[in-house]
Amino acid sequence: MSFAKTPAPPYYAVIFTSKRTEIEEKEYGITADQMVTLASKQQGFLSVESARDEQGIGITVSYWSSLDAIKQWKRNAEHQMAQKKGKGDWYESFITRISKVEKDYSFTR
Amino acid sequence: MSFAKTPAPPYYAVIFTSKRTEIEEKEYGITADQMVTLASKQQGFLSVESARDEQGIGITVSYWSSLDAIKQWKRNAEHQMAQKKGKGDWYESFITRISKVEKDYSFTR
Repeated sequence: MSFAKTPAPPYYAVIFTSKRTEIEEKEYGITADQMVTLASKQQGFLSVESARDEQGIGITVSYWSSLDAIKQWKRNAEHQMAQKKGKGDWYESFITRISKVEKDYSFTR
Repeated sequence: MSFAKTPAPPYYAVIFTSKRTEIEEKEYGITADQMVTLASKQQGFLSVESARDEQGIGITVSYWSSLDAIKQWKRNAEHQMAQKKGKGDWYESFITRISKVEKDYSFTR
């Protein structure tokens, strides 16, 4: 995972915090990668960043140019299948937060 | 780390994405814990969630009731010392994004 490259604000961030179950590690990983590839082809997609720790807590933040782009992605058919599988098998729990980025600043050595 | 408990939107999220250097793991961990404790005592602090993967990429999201609370926390003296140490030693790079959460939804098994 690398840092998300995003334009000057405003843009939108979907903060997805999740706790994984312990089942189907391999299929989960494949699907997660597929969803990143698929999301990146959607209109309005800017970037994504993600980290998961050893306790199975993960945070994925995807960045979008508009609320409408986020809505379209949520409705995408393949994504909906993954969402169903997520609720059925992969996630113990999750919270999705939709937010508008108003300001950002960065530091590089 | 557990899930952040947050009230009904709107509220604010500070998305801090960072890449660690490889130095001073122990002092970094102590300071990171101290900053969570200190932040949680600030007025307007709601909650925090955090994950760091094995490649040293971490995402910490702190939640706040107002932009002013975020501003006050940024200016906190002990936090400023930690920020200085972060730029000097601990982080290869980071991006901070300040966003307003407009909507959220959750799932629990």
